[in-house]
Amino acid sequence: MSDQIRRVAIVGGTHGNELTGVYLVKKFEQCPQLIQRASFQSMTLLANPEAIRINRRYLDRDLNRCFAIADLQNSNLNSYEDRRAKAIAAQLGPKVQPNVDVIFDLHSTTANMGLTILPSSRHPFQQQLSAYLSDRYPTVRICYGVQSDQDAPMLRSLTPLGFTLEIGAIAQGILDAQQFQQTEMLIYAILDYLDAYNRNELPPLPSHWTYYQAIAPVDYPRNAAGELQAMVHPQLQFQDYQPLHPGDPMFLTFTGNTISYAGHTTVFPVFINEAAYYEKGIAMILTQKEHLRLDQRTLDKRALDQE
Amino acid sequence: MSDQIRRVAIVGGTHGNELTGVYLVKKFEQCPQLIQRASFQSMTLLANPEAIRINRRYLDRDLNRCFAIADLQNSNLNSYEDRRAKAIAAQLGPKVQPNVDVIFDLHSTTANMGLTILPSSRHPFQQQLSAYLSDRYPTVRICYGVQSDQDAPMLRSLTPLGFTLEIGAIAQGILDAQQFQQTEMLIYAILDYLDAYNRNELPPLPSHWTYYQAIAPVDYPRNAAGELQAMVHPQLQFQDYQPLHPGDPMFLTFTGNTISYAGHTTVFPVFINEAAYYEKGIAMILTQKEHLRLDQRTLDKRALDQE
Repeated sequence: MSDQIRRVAIVGGTHGNELTGVYLVKKFEQCPQLIQRASFQSMTLLANPEAIRINRRYLDRDLNRCFAIADLQNSNLNSYEDRRAKAIAAQLGPKVQPNVDVIFDLHSTTANMGLTILPSSRHPFQQQLSAYLSDRYPTVRICYGVQSDQDAPMLRSLTPLGFTLEIGAIAQGILDAQQFQQTEMLIYAILDYLDAYNRNELPPLPSHWTYYQAIAPVDYPRNAAGELQAMVHPQLQFQDYQPLHPGDPMFLTFTGNTISYAGHTTVFPVFINEAAYYEKGIAMILTQKEHLRLDQRTLDKRALDQE
Repeated sequence: MSDQIRRVAIVGGTHGNELTGVYLVKKFEQCPQLIQRASFQSMTLLANPEAIRINRRYLDRDLNRCFAIADLQNSNLNSYEDRRAKAIAAQLGPKVQPNVDVIFDLHSTTANMGLTILPSSRHPFQQQLSAYLSDRYPTVRICYGVQSDQDAPMLRSLTPLGFTLEIGAIAQGILDAQQFQQTEMLIYAILDYLDAYNRNELPPLPSHWTYYQAIAPVDYPRNAAGELQAMVHPQLQFQDYQPLHPGDPMFLTFTGNTISYAGHTTVFPVFINEAAYYEKGIAMILTQKEHLRLDQRTLDKRALDQE
């Protein structure tokens, strides 16, 4: 990898019913100057055009789970989304030597996660960018997925400098003007940061930063046939990133009984009651909150060569 | 029509991704005593099982627009939903002499409408029930659709004592425990009222009541190709039932320009930014707020014979 950011891709519509990213990409296609910066090239991509057309998450299979290396190499996988994933991997990837340095993949969630950045790796460059953004914009949170390496099946994993940007709570299939503008603001902030990096004019970075590390998903209580038996408890609904202590209410059965969190340590749930995760068997994802000293030794042009 | 309520139907899943009604009906199927009252029979129905199975609003066509008389009689209409509508009309209807006296059809919306009752007619019995509920539960609002006669295409129109119960804001495809419980409470309140009516023990009714009368839908600003050019303005988002004055912000274009409400009278928008209405060309429905004296002359057993 060069010590410069050369090419940046902004991706929307990986899920066809998450309209914030779709319409931001359409805006950038009409006004490309908004995402141009002097020191690198910017491009846009609508990842799942057929899903966008029918306003659904996907046609055959969740596109954002099609980017594992083995799946990309498996020629027997040829659903619409598998074919899209291979085409996108050829365009933005491949993983070993990607054509673009940085990817932002724009998503939204019915969970109340505000603006969340999910990095594709622990690359020092990404840690610095994440620390900067969460310091500068206190509403921005950083969350590492359970699998944050390059064999993860998400589109962001095409490059070690990939990010998923989530915003919520927002229903599928609608635009929320305020959340549209917040996401747009964050994109410009990232582009400006990348440009400053290239020009060796990085702003001061904080000495510490906070992130959330996903530990494990938790499913809804179900019966033997797999049918839901409970809902997220009203005290937990919309409380993403808030502490869940042992014994706190977690679910409420349809008959009105509370099911408490049975873990032994305080956790910080995210993706609470995300609509698209019912079918994945996920009611929420538990995270640990981590405070870390930012490694300042990498604060130079060689940050990109650290891994 | 008899002067007694004899049969009541509680319908869920007319839209397969509005889970509140689906899971309330499943609850009532498992615990039928919850909806039984001494003076009438209660039954439940999941209206669109295939749409529920795939967690979508509908397969081929919006079931809740298939109940116009001409469509029910048109044997050329044979999509999945058209066939379901005919079967449901045979079971609960027909419109001229329905098999059930009262229908509640349970829905949800991404608009911030709280608990809303949409009656199928202006029958005095319905006006009294609506007045009672909105007086007893100040969070319950009454809204008459643009078309509130028996030829309306909604399932509720199978009987002049039909109601749609809406709750929101809630995303499609999720359960919100608080809204589940609020809808459940309202169902029990209606059942208790019907039972009290049959036993001639109606509670005191208010002298006045307030309802919202739909006037006209408003579409999003679109270009010649039909593509969205703007979003609901942040100042209007989630402000269902609040006054919209001439000149107030209504939409925000993707480039950041405000489009104001150009009408000459104050209106009260509902279904603001409902996800399912993008495809119908509806950004919101404007209503007028009406305060009326309740006609107390019909407050007797003959209320059911007034129309």
